[in-house]
Amino acid sequence: MLRSFGAKPFLLPTPVMLVGTYDRDGKPNIMTAAWGGICASQPPAIAVSIRKSRWTYAAITERKAFTVNIPSRKLAAQADFAGMHSGSEMDKFLTLDLTPEPAEHIDAPYVAQCPLVIELALLRSMDLGSHTQFIGEIMDVKIDDGCLTPDGLPDVAAIDPLLFAPLVQQYWSIGSFIAKAFSVGHSAARTAVIS
Amino acid sequence: MLRSFGAKPFLLPTPVMLVGTYDRDGKPNIMTAAWGGICASQPPAIAVSIRKSRWTYAAITERKAFTVNIPSRKLAAQADFAGMHSGSEMDKFLTLDLTPEPAEHIDAPYVAQCPLVIELALLRSMDLGSHTQFIGEIMDVKIDDGCLTPDGLPDVAAIDPLLFAPLVQQYWSIGSFIAKAFSVGHSAARTAVIS
Repeated sequence: MLRSFGAKPFLLPTPVMLVGTYDRDGKPNIMTAAWGGICASQPPAIAVSIRKSRWTYAAITERKAFTVNIPSRKLAAQADFAGMHSGSEMDKFLTLDLTPEPAEHIDAPYVAQCPLVIELALLRSMDLGSHTQFIGEIMDVKIDDGCLTPDGLPDVAAIDPLLFAPLVQQYWSIGSFIAKAFSVGHSAARTAVIS
Repeated sequence: MLRSFGAKPFLLPTPVMLVGTYDRDGKPNIMTAAWGGICASQPPAIAVSIRKSRWTYAAITERKAFTVNIPSRKLAAQADFAGMHSGSEMDKFLTLDLTPEPAEHIDAPYVAQCPLVIELALLRSMDLGSHTQFIGEIMDVKIDDGCLTPDGLPDVAAIDPLLFAPLVQQYWSIGSFIAKAFSVGHSAARTAVIS
């Protein structure tokens, strides 16, 4: 039996993204965003939605660049703080003891402490009401070499990305490997139908 | 030390969304999508990106409506199958032993076996190259009443949403509760800076 919750912004999970920018004075800043995701494969792109009132909104609009930094669970408190305070009031990197490093391909800083860093060049933006959706073309994906499998692929458990659950406003960890995609489904069809 | 992976579509995590539609003949269909997320709070909206070649692309374009159904981990094989086969070839609901129910507010079916169902009315679509991004206004969120906490809120562990990790092409489970958002961050600032 389904219980209706009405027209609310809800989905499980949403990512926890530390959006890194330089403001007009060149000061590095991060803000936490959970509204977004991958939006295309070619060109590879990520959409992140941000309110117009945010310091980061102006920075992306001016610099046409941002990073998405995925914090591991041990950065939960810093990620939460970065979502509650504005870069107009303080230097959040300094306050949170995080290190801004200049991105390689774009005009934005990344968070050295994050195990997964994505460099994005602004492709377009779209006003969606409460939020503006910024679509960034992925210029590079960087992963901490301590978070790779022996064959050099991303080790999801080692990256240990923080997740967000809206409505209940909770951070969660990622759990365990369930199955290989484009593989486990081969056994899913009903025998009666396939035979 | 960061290792560069180049310009690839990667983010952790991405959701696993079963996108429900009626095709032009009224046949219910689902496809699996991982490119998407919440994109606005007011109006509450979700963006889902779909290739033009997909059966679901035509269905959303014609009916202006779709559902996003979040499978729990026990539906991993069905979710994977629904991403590998086209609704032009078969009735995936029938093949996977899933039940299409008509949505309450829009012209699309939802998956009765999914613990979380979101009804969406198409707001706009945007060509992003490989994919078209469909932005749907959330008309209702429905959660299985066996997946609620005693105070009637979504129980994330009970919903047990399936997650997807791109590049490595893996399904993962959600893990454990880490912290309350808009709360744990109060302790994050360096004492030296705040005092």
